[in-house]
Amino acid sequence: MKLALYPGTFDPITNGHLDVARRAIRLFDRLIIGVAENPGKQPLFTFEERISMTREAVGASGDLDRVDVQGFDGLTVELARKLGASSLIRGLRAVSDFEYELQVALTNRELAEDIDSVFFMPSVEYIYLNSSMVKNVAKHGGDTLSFVPENVMEKLRERFPKRH
Amino acid sequence: MKLALYPGTFDPITNGHLDVARRAIRLFDRLIIGVAENPGKQPLFTFEERISMTREAVGASGDLDRVDVQGFDGLTVELARKLGASSLIRGLRAVSDFEYELQVALTNRELAEDIDSVFFMPSVEYIYLNSSMVKNVAKHGGDTLSFVPENVMEKLRERFPKRH
Amino acid sequence: MKLALYPGTFDPITNGHLDVARRAIRLFDRLIIGVAENPGKQPLFTFEERISMTREAVGASGDLDRVDVQGFDGLTVELARKLGASSLIRGLRAVSDFEYELQVALTNRELAEDIDSVFFMPSVEYIYLNSSMVKNVAKHGGDTLSFVPENVMEKLRERFPKRH
Amino acid sequence: MKLALYPGTFDPITNGHLDVARRAIRLFDRLIIGVAENPGKQPLFTFEERISMTREAVGASGDLDRVDVQGFDGLTVELARKLGASSLIRGLRAVSDFEYELQVALTNRELAEDIDSVFFMPSVEYIYLNSSMVKNVAKHGGDTLSFVPENVMEKLRERFPKRH
Amino acid sequence: MKLALYPGTFDPITNGHLDVARRAIRLFDRLIIGVAENPGKQPLFTFEERISMTREAVGASGDLDRVDVQGFDGLTVELARKLGASSLIRGLRAVSDFEYELQVALTNRELAEDIDSVFFMPSVEYIYLNSSMVKNVAKHGGDTLSFVPENVMEKLRERFPKRH
Amino acid sequence: MKLALYPGTFDPITNGHLDVARRAIRLFDRLIIGVAENPGKQPLFTFEERISMTREAVGASGDLDRVDVQGFDGLTVELARKLGASSLIRGLRAVSDFEYELQVALTNRELAEDIDSVFFMPSVEYIYLNSSMVKNVAKHGGDTLSFVPENVMEKLRERFPKRH
Repeated sequence: MKLALYPGTFDPITNGHLDVARRAIRLFDRLIIGVAENPGKQPLFTFEERISMTREAVGASGDLDRVDVQGFDGLTVELARKLGASSLIRGLRAVSDFEYELQVALTNRELAEDIDSVFFMPSVEYIYLNSSMVKNVAKHGGDTLSFVPENVMEKLRERFPKRH
Repeated sequence: MKLALYPGTFDPITNGHLDVARRAIRLFDRLIIGVAENPGKQPLFTFEERISMTREAVGASGDLDRVDVQGFDGLTVELARKLGASSLIRGLRAVSDFEYELQVALTNRELAEDIDSVFFMPSVEYIYLNSSMVKNVAKHGGDTLSFVPENVMEKLRERFPKRH
Repeated sequence: MKLALYPGTFDPITNGHLDVARRAIRLFDRLIIGVAENPGKQPLFTFEERISMTREAVGASGDLDRVDVQGFDGLTVELARKLGASSLIRGLRAVSDFEYELQVALTNRELAEDIDSVFFMPSVEYIYLNSSMVKNVAKHGGDTLSFVPENVMEKLRERFPKRH
Repeated sequence: MKLALYPGTFDPITNGHLDVARRAIRLFDRLIIGVAENPGKQPLFTFEERISMTREAVGASGDLDRVDVQGFDGLTVELARKLGASSLIRGLRAVSDFEYELQVALTNRELAEDIDSVFFMPSVEYIYLNSSMVKNVAKHGGDTLSFVPENVMEKLRERFPKRH
Repeated sequence: MKLALYPGTFDPITNGHLDVARRAIRLFDRLIIGVAENPGKQPLFTFEERISMTREAVGASGDLDRVDVQGFDGLTVELARKLGASSLIRGLRAVSDFEYELQVALTNRELAEDIDSVFFMPSVEYIYLNSSMVKNVAKHGGDTLSFVPENVMEKLRERFPKRH
Repeated sequence: MKLALYPGTFDPITNGHLDVARRAIRLFDRLIIGVAENPGKQPLFTFEERISMTREAVGASGDLDRVDVQGFDGLTVELARKLGASSLIRGLRAVSDFEYELQVALTNRELAEDIDSVFFMPSVEYIYLNSSMVKNVAKHGGDTLSFVPENVMEKLRERFPKRH
C-alpha cells in the first residue's frame, strides 16, 4: 500500500490545502494529513481545534475518503517512518515559499534519505493563498468563503466577531 | 474626482513611501495615505504617533498638497469603498516584497473586484529600503537622515537615545 | 487629457495584455497600445500583422473604445513624449518578469525622468501567461482559445496548420 | 497500472535528470522519458541522438528498468493521453526555473485538466545543474563527468574535441 | 594588514558559517567573526553562549587560526571602523536571503561608504541551511550533526533533551 | 601577490562592470579583466573590439592602474590557473542574475575546487544595469552616457548611427 504524509500547521486549513490533497491522493492509496503541534509558533487555533477543523473539512469535502487526519508532535520524518509513508506531500506556491520548501525538503532528506518530498501545484486561484492572509482578512471582518471550507469560515467568524 | 488610497503601517513613513506618493498623485486628483492600526503587529510607534508623523512628513514635503493622511482599522478595501477610492496604491521593491504584494493585491481583488491595485516603483535608491531596516539602524544609533524625513529622524532619535 | 502608452512586442497580443489594458484605461482618458517593430527579435508575426491583430483584438473586445493601437520604431520614451503620454503601462507577472520590468522601468526613467511606469496586475489566471508559451502551444497544434482573443487564435491556426 | 511521463529536450540528459527519474519511479509502475523533437530550438544533438543517448544512459544506470525512453513531437499532454499517463514529472531547480515550471504546468493544466504535474527535487548537488551549463563546459574542453552519465560525456568529447 | 569583519547573530553558528569563514580568510590577513547582541530578536542562546559557542567551534575547526570571535552591540559598520576592517563578509544562500543581503549591504554602504560587503558562496550542501532550520530540527529531537559543529550539537541536545 | 580574474563577455563593458572592478581591486594586488571570446553567442562587438574597448575604458578610468585586460578562449578556471589567480570576481545584480551566478560559481567550483568566486555588489544605480539593455537603448538612438564609459558610448554611436 502506497501511503503519503502531508504535514503542516493548518492554522487553519484552506481551499489550497484541500486542492493539494485532492491532487496527491490520485497517486497514493492513502494520504495522512499530519497537523503539527508546533508549540513555539503561537497559532490562532489550538492543536485540538486545528485537528478537528481539518478532519471536518476533509469529511465535508465529499471526495477525500482515502484521506485521514492526525495530530503529531516531533519530526515530520519520524511520523512518516512510523506510518510507513515514503512520501511527504508539499504544495508549491509563491517564490519565497518555494525557497522555504526546498530548504525543508533538503533538511528532511538529510534526516531520512529514504523519505522523499513530492510537490504538487494547487489551482492557480490558490497559488498566492496562505493561512496568514486568510486570518488577516477574517480579523478585519472580511468574508473568507472563497479561501476556506465552510466549517473553517464559521470558526473564523466565531473567533473574530463583527465589530460594527 | 479620481481618488486613490495608499494603505500601509507606516512604522515609520520613509523617503521611499513619500517617493511613491509623489509618483501616484500625478495620476489622481487626491491621494489618501491610510495608516493601518494593525494592533496585532506590535509596531514601534503607536497608531496616533504613526498618523501624526505621516501627516507631518506629508505637510513638510512641500509638494504633496493633494495628499491626506487618515488612520483606519478594518479591511483596506472597506476604507477604499467608504472613501470612494477605486485604486489602491502600492510601491514595488525587492522580490520577496513583490510576492507579498501580489498576494495582497489578489486577496483585495477577491474581496472587492471593482477596486484595483496600481503599482509604482520608487527611485532606485529606495528600492531596497524598508521601515524595519530603518528602525534597526536607529536602534543601534545610526544616522537615518538619508532614509526618512526629518521629523521621523527626530522621533527615532528620541525613541533610541545615543547610548555612548 | 491624461494619456498613457502601453508598449510591447505583442507577438501576439494575449488575453493577459487585454486584461492589463482594461485595468489601465480606468485611470486614463486615452491609452495607446504601442506595438514595437523590434527588428532584432525575429517575431513570429510581422510588424504589420502584429499591429493589425492587436487593433482587431481591441476592436472586438467591446469595452476598449478609448484604446488606440499604433506601431513604432525607436525608444519607448520618445514615442511617449511625442504622444504627450506621461505614463508607461506595464503588466506584472512572474518573478523573473518582475526583475526585467524593474530593469526596463529604471532604464526608461534614466532616459526620461518625467515619464513614469505604472504597473497593473492581470487577473490571476493570466499571471503566468506569456506570448512565447502561447506560440509554443499553437505550434504543437494545441488549442489557444483560453489564452488569446479569437482573431489571434485564428491567425495562429493559419500559421501552424494541424499536421495530423 | 500507474504511468507517468517525464518530458524534456534532454540535450543532453544529465545526472540531475536521472536523479529525478530515480525519485519519480518509486511512485509509479512505469515511467516514460519523453524526448521532445523541438525543431525550433536548435539543439546541440539531433532528435535521434538525444533519444539514443537518453536510452543508453537509462540502460547503463542499472536501476531504472521500469523506465522507457520515447521521442515525440507535438503537445506533451497529447502524448500523455496517448500513453495513458495521468502524471507529468518535472524536476525543480533554481528559482527562475521554478517560475518557468509553474508556467508550463499551468499551461498543461489548461490544455488537459485530468493530467497533473508532479514535481521532484534532485539531490542538492544537481540543484543548479542544467544542460546548457554542461554544454558550455564541454565546448571549452572541460571535464563533464560529474555532471552527466559516461556515454554522454563521450559524445560531448566527440562533438568538442580538445583543441590543444 | 587586511582585516575583515564577518557579522551575524550566530544563534547558533552552523557548518555553513564556518565554510564561509574558511573561504573568506584566504583573502584577508585576519577575520573577526562579530557576534551581534541583538537584544530585540529573542535568540535561543544568550549573547555570552553564542560568543563562546562560536569561539569554541572556530578553535576546534583546526584551520581557522587567523579567525577571532568578538561580541558586539551597535552598528556593524561602527565595529568595522573601530577594528580597522574595510570589508564585511556575508554568505550567499537562497534567494529571499539574497534580497535581504542586498538590503543590508546597501544600508551599510549608505552608513559607511568606505566599508564594502564581500560575498562568498558556501558549499552547495549548505546553500539552503540556516540557523532556524537547525534549531527546529533540534527542538523535535532530530540529529543536527550534519548541520553544525560538534560543540554546537551538544549544546542543542542539552537545550532540547530527548522527550521519549 | 594576490591576483584575481574578473571574467565576462563585456559586450560592451558598462559603468557597472567598472564599479565592480573598482571594489574588487581593493582586496587584491592585481586584477585581470578576462574578456571571453564566446564565439557561440554572436556578440555585438568582435572579440578584438571588446578587448580594446575594455582596455581603453580601464585606462581612461584614472583609478584602475592595477587592473589589466586580457582576451581568452576556453574555460574560465583554466585561465585563472594559468594566471595564478585564486579568485574569480563576479558582480551581483538582479535576482535571475543571482541564480545564474550561483550556477556558474558552482560549476567552476566543480571544475577547480581551489579557485573560489568572490561577489561584489555594484552601486545601487547599476544594480539593474546590463549590457543587453544598454545595446537596446543605443540601437534605438538613446543616450547611453549614464550607463557606459565615454569611449563605449562613442563606439555604440558609430555602430548605431542616428536614423533621423
